[in-house]
Formats: sequence, structure tokens, C-alpha cells
Amino acid sequence: MTRSALPARGRPRGRPRAGTAGDRREQILAAATDEFAELGYDAASMRSIARRSDVDPALVHHYFDSKADLFTAAIGAPIRPDQMIAQIMAGPRDEIGRRIVRYLLTTLDEPDTGKSAVALLRAALGNKAMTPLLAQFLSREVFARIARELGTPDAELRANLLAPQVVGVLITRYVLKLEPIAQASPDELVARIAPVLQFHLVGYPNPGPIVP
Amino acid sequence: MTRSALPARGRPRGRPRAGTAGDRREQILAAATDEFAELGYDAASMRSIARRSDVDPALVHHYFDSKADLFTAAIGAPIRPDQMIAQIMAGPRDEIGRRIVRYLLTTLDEPDTGKSAVALLRAALGNKAMTPLLAQFLSREVFARIARELGTPDAELRANLLAPQVVGVLITRYVLKLEPIAQASPDELVARIAPVLQFHLVGYPNPGPIVP
Repeated sequence: MTRSALPARGRPRGRPRAGTAGDRREQILAAATDEFAELGYDAASMRSIARRSDVDPALVHHYFDSKADLFTAAIGAPIRPDQMIAQIMAGPRDEIGRRIVRYLLTTLDEPDTGKSAVALLRAALGNKAMTPLLAQFLSREVFARIARELGTPDAELRANLLAPQVVGVLITRYVLKLEPIAQASPDELVARIAPVLQFHLVGYPNPGPIVP
Repeated sequence: MTRSALPARGRPRGRPRAGTAGDRREQILAAATDEFAELGYDAASMRSIARRSDVDPALVHHYFDSKADLFTAAIGAPIRPDQMIAQIMAGPRDEIGRRIVRYLLTTLDEPDTGKSAVALLRAALGNKAMTPLLAQFLSREVFARIARELGTPDAELRANLLAPQVVGVLITRYVLKLEPIAQASPDELVARIAPVLQFHLVGYPNPGPIVP
């Protein structure tokens, strides 16, 4: 796998870029991009990325609070799915579906964020080297976490069943722009999609009437 | 839009390719590829494609029974969604979800068909010119048909809500190969996904217990 497995990075998010500090952050990101492309998400490590970028491991941890943070910065992802999941799992269990859909639509309906997400989705699906890398990241940082929280025997399958519905909504609304889904209000989509996510996760016996 | 908007075609499906007959079929497909790329799906016509390929319109109809047939042959699609929909809508309404999932998995778990479908999905999502063309085809030949059959006021949205769940399953199982969805048995996936499609289409109040 070569470095071209990863798409060009966007602008670093919300951190100053002055002088050598910014340079060192860029240096770490470049090393991380190589490391993830060569080893995949699971085998890559913050320590090894520090070695590659010739900086102290403490500096890597100063700029990036986790491997997930470093990975999402390296691929230019507009949201951090690992953080999103932490927020989503924090509330009442019978509203997980609503929180997931609401969070994604609120974030991605914002034009800049939406554009980055579409570029990333296209890259992830169009580039054969990028696809398994993203799948590994999602498995490890998103679905395995949800499965641990659920704790049921079929939790792994249940957590992963979120992916088709969520990926599908993102692709039809933001990439294919299929009407009327592309123009549907967030409330309408929450009403239509949340019960499905709820069903996948906890087998909610009755998703209730559709009331946007 | 240029001809490169469409991916290279696969081998023509199940028709003889001997002498000038095969050549004329290829000639029609090449003209169709140009026509769809230039005009989009809705504005393209069998008559105009006949003119472009310099053959009699009757010959186009001899090789291809509809614009949908010509389009799927031109993009090398392994299944004809318009035919699939006709079959699926024919049975009992409360089993539409099961029939859709069963049909897709049975067809795409077959290695050759699956590979073509993945190539096509990657092309459709990775190529900015191809994306709206596929979306137009799906709207016209798949979702508008289902919506007409449903006949409820929100039928258009309901029919289109199939797309995210179906596209998502195809991408996670066949492109991302996310486990355990990639290895799940067709029966397991029918049990998990069919109630969701049923909910999207007819708002089935109770998707029932999950019994693979």
C-alpha cells in the first residue's frame, strides 16, 4: 500500500499553524498517513508514528489525543465518529436511533462539513486501498464500542447493522442526491430512520407511528 | 459529459456475438453509451440512439426490449432493477421486504454477479458524471414504479427510503466487507433487513421477532 491510499488532507481543524509548531504537526500527520497506509488502522501506533516523524511521543499526544484523532485528521474527516459514539451512547437507550440521525444530519447539512464528508466517502469507496482502512477504523472505533455497550450475544451484528442504514442515508442524501431524500427535512428523516436504527440495535418491537 | 462518464462494459449478457449481428449490437451499445452520457437517462431515447448508431429503430428494439434494458447493458449492470421490481411487486404486499432482500442476496452472493455489482457501485460513486446518471435511472425505473404501486400520499418518499437501506447493505457486505455483515448468512440478513424495508414501505407497525 502506498501513501496515495489516503486522500489529500484538508486544513488542520481548529489548531494554530504558526512557525515550527505547525510544521511539526504537519510532519506528524505526514508520518501518520504513511503508517496507516502501510500497516492498516489496527497495527499502526502513536509510538511508531512518533518514531517515523522523528519527534518525541509526548508531542504526538500533545497534538492528538488518540489514534482515532490522528486518523481522522490524517484522512481529513469532518467529524470524529469515536467522539460522536461516546455522545450518542450517553443518553437514554430507547432514543439512540434519534440521537444518531439527528447528530449526523445536523453536522452534515452544514455545507462545509457535508462537502468534506462526500469527498471522503467517494475516496473511501472509489479507492481499493482506502476501503479496508476505513472499514478497520469503523469496526474498531465505532461498532466494537457500541457492541460492548449493548452487551447482548448478538451485539456485534446488531451494532454493525447500523452501518448499512447510516452509510446508505449519507450516500443517497449527499452523494447520489436522490429526491425526495436529498431535500427532506431533518425532522422527517429522523422520524423515518430513527426507528430503524432502534430496531437494529435493540429489536424495538414497535417503532411507533411516523410523526415527524 | 463525455463518454468516460460510463465504466467499460462487461461482456454482453446471454446473446450470441457472431458476425455482423454482434457488431451491430456493439454499435448500438456504443451509441447508447454516448447518448446516456451526453443527455442523461431521462432525455435519452431509443429512437435517437438508433439514429446515432445508424441502424433501424426496429433493430434496436430487436436487441433491447426497453430503454432500461439498453441502459443496464451499456453500464454492464449484472441485474436489471426494473425487472427485479416487477417481480418483487407481484407477490403479497406484506412480504415485499423479504422478497427484495432475498432477491438481492441470492443474485449478488454469486461471485461473478457480485464482482460486477461492486465495480459498478464503485464507478457510480467515484465518478461525478456517472452518479447523477445512475440516480436518474433508479428514480425513473425503480422508485417511481414502486411509488405508483403503493399509491399513498407519501409513496414517493417511502419508495425512495428503500434506497439507503439497500445501497447500504450492498456497500457494507460487498464493498467495505464489514464483518460480521460480510459473512452473515442470507437468512440472517433477510431476518434483520426485511422488516426495515417493510417499515419504510408500509409503516408496518410491528416488524415482529427476529427469527432467521
